[in-house]
Amino acid sequence: MLTTTEDRGAIRILRFNRPGALNAFNGALFDAVAEDVIAATEDDAVKVLVITGEGRAFSAGMDLTDKPDPNNPPVHGFDGMFEALIEFPKPLLLAINGVGVGFGCTITGLADLVLMAENARLRCPFTALGLTAEAASTVTFPAMMGPQAANWVLLSSAWLDAQTCKELGMVFDVVPDEDLMQQTLQRAQVLAEKPLASLITTKEMLMAPRREALREAHEIESAGLGSLMGGPANKEAVAAFTEGREPDFSAF
Amino acid sequence: MLTTTEDRGAIRILRFNRPGALNAFNGALFDAVAEDVIAATEDDAVKVLVITGEGRAFSAGMDLTDKPDPNNPPVHGFDGMFEALIEFPKPLLLAINGVGVGFGCTITGLADLVLMAENARLRCPFTALGLTAEAASTVTFPAMMGPQAANWVLLSSAWLDAQTCKELGMVFDVVPDEDLMQQTLQRAQVLAEKPLASLITTKEMLMAPRREALREAHEIESAGLGSLMGGPANKEAVAAFTEGREPDFSAF
Amino acid sequence: MLTTTEDRGAIRILRFNRPGALNAFNGALFDAVAEDVIAATEDDAVKVLVITGEGRAFSAGMDLTDKPDPNNPPVHGFDGMFEALIEFPKPLLLAINGVGVGFGCTITGLADLVLMAENARLRCPFTALGLTAEAASTVTFPAMMGPQAANWVLLSSAWLDAQTCKELGMVFDVVPDEDLMQQTLQRAQVLAEKPLASLITTKEMLMAPRREALREAHEIESAGLGSLMGGPANKEAVAAFTEGREPDFSAF
Repeated sequence: MLTTTEDRGAIRILRFNRPGALNAFNGALFDAVAEDVIAATEDDAVKVLVITGEGRAFSAGMDLTDKPDPNNPPVHGFDGMFEALIEFPKPLLLAINGVGVGFGCTITGLADLVLMAENARLRCPFTALGLTAEAASTVTFPAMMGPQAANWVLLSSAWLDAQTCKELGMVFDVVPDEDLMQQTLQRAQVLAEKPLASLITTKEMLMAPRREALREAHEIESAGLGSLMGGPANKEAVAAFTEGREPDFSAF
Repeated sequence: MLTTTEDRGAIRILRFNRPGALNAFNGALFDAVAEDVIAATEDDAVKVLVITGEGRAFSAGMDLTDKPDPNNPPVHGFDGMFEALIEFPKPLLLAINGVGVGFGCTITGLADLVLMAENARLRCPFTALGLTAEAASTVTFPAMMGPQAANWVLLSSAWLDAQTCKELGMVFDVVPDEDLMQQTLQRAQVLAEKPLASLITTKEMLMAPRREALREAHEIESAGLGSLMGGPANKEAVAAFTEGREPDFSAF
Repeated sequence: MLTTTEDRGAIRILRFNRPGALNAFNGALFDAVAEDVIAATEDDAVKVLVITGEGRAFSAGMDLTDKPDPNNPPVHGFDGMFEALIEFPKPLLLAINGVGVGFGCTITGLADLVLMAENARLRCPFTALGLTAEAASTVTFPAMMGPQAANWVLLSSAWLDAQTCKELGMVFDVVPDEDLMQQTLQRAQVLAEKPLASLITTKEMLMAPRREALREAHEIESAGLGSLMGGPANKEAVAAFTEGREPDFSAF
């Protein structure tokens, strides 16, 4: 199973479950997460969804070694999972238990509340890969962090420690690693004790004015990504990664 | 008198004056505040308006015990007071002297600058009442606090101490209780020494791009509130309040 | 030369160079900056632009003593420089080395990342001059600082020390004065090592949703400025400045 789910009362916990691959996303994992989010949407017994990672990583982002099976294409894919997340009508919490890279970082902009283990780190390595931002982060990051911090995070590809993530507004709280799940569940429980109709009505009013802008940003970003993927800088980044050296973008 | 006003030079101080009811809002208090704000708008001798609460509370929010007099309906009501506040063309400061609940908390989003006593506390208890957000807070809170903090404040119904309110961006500064009025008036005086035309022109440019979104949010929130008021979760909340017990929303 | 430029690898440093006038802007300096920014836009060898001030000031803002030469009108002027800045497609950093007043402060809202010397100070003295905000600051400041801080900064004309500027979100980092250039160049270098196409694509996605609102705000602010310039409060401010006394706006 690429994901596992567990219910604690009205709280559903969804775990990325490819620990051997640091929970990197392949098409099948996108599909599994999309299915889980849709199931949590439809299940009236679920009031709050918590997403975390199995093992020591939260998610290493896109699995660059993934070879899609042409006879078994993804049903939802990245687009479908993105859509399921921004349409999820109940509170969505993240418990960032370890390293989060790429979508393991930009997913913070799609969640309602993010808690982070104090030794976890996040990174958006798009420019270092000759690529560009994704998952509507060009809209969600300025909203969370203000424009300057968003510019730095998305343009520099820098690693961000947990304290920095909190100061920038990318995560709501940082807690000791060993307390992460308990503290996340405690906040989830505060929400789960409220009437579902109040949670849904309030979240929808908070989300509705933003949803269309997120969709548009996702489309524009996907087009940007498409134009850069396989280009000279991206090829140099992949070659450098394969050869275990730093990329040299001085010609790009 | 449900409100009192006092002028210190070009600064008008408006006090909610139902201290026995912790300055809870009934229809008559909405009307009184609306009238005071409109009067301060029209009086050219007033450059800055400071709103605070008489007694130990700032405002306990909607007075749930209020029985409107059908022969004496409110003239402005909540909608009229909301409109007077978002149309107020001069700097509007709050001095939060004590507990602020409901509109005693969401009014922060309608003011230009908020100072808060260090022992005061704020709370938006909408979900705990089986209701939902009001006073355009689904738009003003994300703008003040970023999306995650706004989600938590509006979905959790949690109490917020003054330091948290400052860290989240809900208030501009926290000061010792005994210095609140003096420090608020000091900032008001800095503004009152500026030419009124500069204050009005600058505030209007800051407010104009937001005003229509605030009106829309207020309308949508009022519709949401209408759909939840008197519903099963709200009834359970009222019953629990009356019976002095915690509400049980596990069935909702 | 009213500006100087220097290249360090792919980083171009642009210095305001009227140190005797505290780098105050006259029409010729606006033109020089606009030309430099356009040149940096078009030069493919430049990946990152850093703007700083020569001497002890960053920029004192508009040069009130400037007498435009009617036979030699500005080519770009303030409007052209503003347009060049918001169209600049590569990362734009500021190193605020000393006092920044007026546009020396509002330019923070047009840059991608701002570093500030710990002894530098910023101020938007528009209301103290009987004028109003400029350079789209009524839109950029709320985005950087949240509404309350933006209101205070633009309405109060208060001086802001570097630590306050960081806490408010107006600058990304504050560093010891003697380290300012080195630390700014270090961050610029992180960006300059990335492929230009990734930098440009990502910045454009971050900037595109904001650009039209910046242009509109700039137009509305210019109209507001036009309506107040030369009015009674502005005249009193200029007279007080000339006479070396505090202005008295009690009649305005």
